[in-house]
Amino acid sequence: MHGNMMQWPLLISSIFRHATTYHHDQEIVSVTADQPQFRYTFTDFAARVCQLANALTNAGVKPGDRIATMAWNDHRHLELYYAISGIGAVCHTINPRLFPEQIEYIVEHAEDTLLFADPMFVELITPITARSNTVRAVIVLDDGATTVDGIASTSYEDFIACEAETFAWPEFDENSACALCYTSGTTGNPKGVLYSHRSTVLHALTVTTPNALEIGMQDAVLPVVPLFHVNAWGIPYAALLSGAKLVLPGAALDGESLYSLMEREAVSVTAGVPTVWLGLQKHLQENNRKLPSLKRMIVGGSAAPSSMIEYFETQQDVNFVHAWGMTEMSPLGTVCRLKPAMQQDSREARTAQKIKQGMPVFGVELKIVDDDGMRLPHDGEAMGELWVRGPWITSGYFRNPEGSRSDFDSEGYFRTGDISTIDSQGYMRICDRAKDVIKSGGEWISSIDLENVAVGHPKVAEAAVIGVPCDKWQERPLLVVVLKKPGSELTLNEMRDFLTGKVPKWWQPGAMEVVDSLPHTATGKIQKRALRQQFADFSFTSSTEGSI
Amino acid sequence: MHGNMMQWPLLISSIFRHATTYHHDQEIVSVTADQPQFRYTFTDFAARVCQLANALTNAGVKPGDRIATMAWNDHRHLELYYAISGIGAVCHTINPRLFPEQIEYIVEHAEDTLLFADPMFVELITPITARSNTVRAVIVLDDGATTVDGIASTSYEDFIACEAETFAWPEFDENSACALCYTSGTTGNPKGVLYSHRSTVLHALTVTTPNALEIGMQDAVLPVVPLFHVNAWGIPYAALLSGAKLVLPGAALDGESLYSLMEREAVSVTAGVPTVWLGLQKHLQENNRKLPSLKRMIVGGSAAPSSMIEYFETQQDVNFVHAWGMTEMSPLGTVCRLKPAMQQDSREARTAQKIKQGMPVFGVELKIVDDDGMRLPHDGEAMGELWVRGPWITSGYFRNPEGSRSDFDSEGYFRTGDISTIDSQGYMRICDRAKDVIKSGGEWISSIDLENVAVGHPKVAEAAVIGVPCDKWQERPLLVVVLKKPGSELTLNEMRDFLTGKVPKWWQPGAMEVVDSLPHTATGKIQKRALRQQFADFSFTSSTEGSI
Ligand SMILES: Nc1ncnc2c1ncn2[C@@H]1O[C@H](COP(=O)(O)OP(=O)(O)OP(=O)(O)O)[C@@H](O)[C@H]1O
Ligand SMILES: Nc1ncnc2c1ncn2[C@@H]1O[C@H](COP(=O)(O)OP(=O)(O)OP(=O)(O)O)[C@@H](O)[C@H]1O
Ligand SMILES: [Mg+2]
Ligand SMILES: [Mg+2]
Repeated sequence: MHGNMMQWPLLISSIFRHATTYHHDQEIVSVTADQPQFRYTFTDFAARVCQLANALTNAGVKPGDRIATMAWNDHRHLELYYAISGIGAVCHTINPRLFPEQIEYIVEHAEDTLLFADPMFVELITPITARSNTVRAVIVLDDGATTVDGIASTSYEDFIACEAETFAWPEFDENSACALCYTSGTTGNPKGVLYSHRSTVLHALTVTTPNALEIGMQDAVLPVVPLFHVNAWGIPYAALLSGAKLVLPGAALDGESLYSLMEREAVSVTAGVPTVWLGLQKHLQENNRKLPSLKRMIVGGSAAPSSMIEYFETQQDVNFVHAWGMTEMSPLGTVCRLKPAMQQDSREARTAQKIKQGMPVFGVELKIVDDDGMRLPHDGEAMGELWVRGPWITSGYFRNPEGSRSDFDSEGYFRTGDISTIDSQGYMRICDRAKDVIKSGGEWISSIDLENVAVGHPKVAEAAVIGVPCDKWQERPLLVVVLKKPGSELTLNEMRDFLTGKVPKWWQPGAMEVVDSLPHTATGKIQKRALRQQFADFSFTSSTEGSI
Repeated sequence: MHGNMMQWPLLISSIFRHATTYHHDQEIVSVTADQPQFRYTFTDFAARVCQLANALTNAGVKPGDRIATMAWNDHRHLELYYAISGIGAVCHTINPRLFPEQIEYIVEHAEDTLLFADPMFVELITPITARSNTVRAVIVLDDGATTVDGIASTSYEDFIACEAETFAWPEFDENSACALCYTSGTTGNPKGVLYSHRSTVLHALTVTTPNALEIGMQDAVLPVVPLFHVNAWGIPYAALLSGAKLVLPGAALDGESLYSLMEREAVSVTAGVPTVWLGLQKHLQENNRKLPSLKRMIVGGSAAPSSMIEYFETQQDVNFVHAWGMTEMSPLGTVCRLKPAMQQDSREARTAQKIKQGMPVFGVELKIVDDDGMRLPHDGEAMGELWVRGPWITSGYFRNPEGSRSDFDSEGYFRTGDISTIDSQGYMRICDRAKDVIKSGGEWISSIDLENVAVGHPKVAEAAVIGVPCDKWQERPLLVVVLKKPGSELTLNEMRDFLTGKVPKWWQPGAMEVVDSLPHTATGKIQKRALRQQFADFSFTSSTEGSI
């Protein structure tokens, strides 16, 4: 027997309608190349989104068509989010930091018909769009200063200029596709994840809850995480859904720019990857600055080191919230919020808990399993492959039926490719990626944990660990570090002394290399594949190798 | 084109699984007749819910069967919520304060097969269940002290005692029915609203958001609103979904009992109707007591007077959040949270805003229309009939196709029967019920506004206004008051002096009557129908009637 409740589909246009009706004078602040201090209200935003929806429709865009964007976080990109999905088309956000070959592959694979690009990416895309069989035109996100060779093109402002400022949003099945994002390609070729209106709205609603990012109409939210990376963790939807002020930082993500923006706009919630916060931390420390309005920072994408957690919690009085997710998960999986009893713990115990990636939000189911697929206990010890299930998790990659099948098990869970533990309180900790994990003498070494401890050394700015083959132990960890002071010195023995007592004895690195910088992916993660290539010829001397 | 996302149905058993896996040592505190200080963890709760699910299954309960409850807010009632809906049956919560004829009508209309009742309701239900054609057995919510005549019966503890403590929850369509609640019957015969798993989970998630009740794992939540009244505004689901502590007050809702419970359990969020808070306010004032842990109180069901808002905000430092809803709406429709700019306003301006019922939460669409169904502007002046639409709003009453049709319009909106305004900021204000509204000399008088001002008079404890026919103006307001000090005096002229300047001149009551008490409905609302009957023979003297 069915309940007697209305069938009201969960659509992105419902978020738009709610925000622009009930929070019409709330603000969106945006940094663009041509307007570094742009701001307007939800009402102004609404008018332009409707103009864009009309322009897209007039340009022949049909429901289901993929429309690509390659842009920073600004108001035009936000308008694209709402107009494209609102008319039933698919907003395909492309990560401009992927290799050009990857970008070309993605555009063709998705069969994008229009491409909206920031002026600074025109050079990058010109050869791709000139060759493309699917892209019909490029629309440059400015007011007419930039031209594109080899393809029809116009400026965004011209594209929408003459259109009507109202639009009748169609109603359709909430399972319709709304957005498409390819994974970062940290471990291989990018794979497409096709989100639905239902998954996006449920995810956005969850993002607003107190156990997650906690966004209400009192908040000013700054997504530093790019709109081209998993929909900026759902914040462009969550902020409007709650009537919060949305602050979009454009391309300038250095410490100084972020500090100024947060200060000027009284930002209360922000979200981004650890690399970005390292920059901010450095800026704040060097200039002895404070962030009085900031209440919460949500940090994910790769593991946050404990030194960062301690700095922001004790020096900036910010609630540092570690989170974990994936492109395949929209992305929110787990959030590390302390339970009431843990609030009473010592600072050290709280940091030790906050370094974990946390508990799943309602809607996400986790399991860790051994090599035979058997569930492992929640004891904080047992390490296993992490599998997930829930309404905003992919059921298969876009146009990739073969690649998809092996990623799902008979219970409908999706294989994350991460290795983790879950403690008795339900807190999950990412130990490694299955592809990065180091097996030494038959035992697993968590490269993430080892990196996290090593980065706590006062001389170290960044640390990465990879496994290098060795005869005696199969694999031994090689520690690669960037020093805070270029030109300073750090010896393997100093590092070993520092690590002693903080990691198991057999985790001690077999060798340490000092480099000027580490290779990062488009989304700020350390590119372990590139690092392994860089050290492909490395081999331990028998003295270091045996010294554990 | 559909998105590629998992089909993960929104089920009440998912809330159960999440809560009991990730918040297993969170507590439920419960006051029952036999155990006035009962407390247990989510783990203990889980075991008993599974026992109950097994017992129900063994008793032959099938998906879709209606299982009735008549009980206060305690842990056994909560177990019934999760076990009945979890196995796919329908939890039909009966309001014990309805007239016995109404209860009998409801039980037969719903075709309840089992009835779970608190011991104190056994006398009330005995004749009903003895006569019933559908109820097979009564299960008394105690450990065996009470027996029921004329029907098979057992105690709850015996019913579940020998069952296994695990249960494999079935997966089914999220649109399946999960619960049934009949309206309060303020305006006529109770009508059944049949909720679905989808509507209930979406509503619960929304209840937890910062713009609504704001419930996270840090909170201790006390639903004073009964579990038999619109699922206690979704709190039994919302609290478990967020891992919050749930404090269930049983039958003792007087000021002293509520104060003690809040104090002992460090309650941070509570929700209930104004009548209950009047009792608490009186107790706190008379005993000069404070509620230091309480952060928010959500107040709805009928209009909260400004004197109450001011007391709790200024004397108790509580965020007083006015809300509006209906049984037909699960019930959450609007919540009155101030926008950031309003936080800077004077205390008076803030109270004037907080007395409104607020803005819709995301998921609820409102419109106010004139007699021709044309939309009225959001100007805070235009008063019209309020219509609503959304995923947790009824699409028709249970087994009542005729009654249902006229309540919906061609856009799919549901007629609330309330008369309201919406101001330019989107805040809705309930002025009256369509059936209670007073039309005087062609103009509407808001009985709610008039009551709200009158109750601000220092001598007045409670006030009600009804329209009484008169020749000259068609209808004139009759003010009926209960005085704070029994036996004290208050004249019509004193009251008129007090009202002067606070209400339009033509709203001045034609007469005032002092009574010992006002008739209330089962959910704490003033029963205008009964009041009108009581004053059916009343007529204005020509002197008062003309005196406006
Ligand atoms: N808080 C975190 N701590 C550690 N690792 C994290 C955290 N958050 C995310 N990750 C890592 O990031 C992964 C998800 O990243 P994303 O979806 O952006 O692409 P990717 O996995 O890096 O790329 P690809 O799948 O194409 O190789 C997770 O599987 C996990 O390994
Ligand atoms: N904050 C509030 N202020 C004023 N009125 C309110 C408020 N909240 C709820 N109400 C009133 O309560 C009504 C909903 O109550 P409920 O669903 O409990 O049953 P009822 O309408 O009283 O009973 P019935 O529909 O059987 O006559 C609303 O339509 C509205 O009139
Ligand atoms: Mg990945
Ligand atoms: Mg009603």
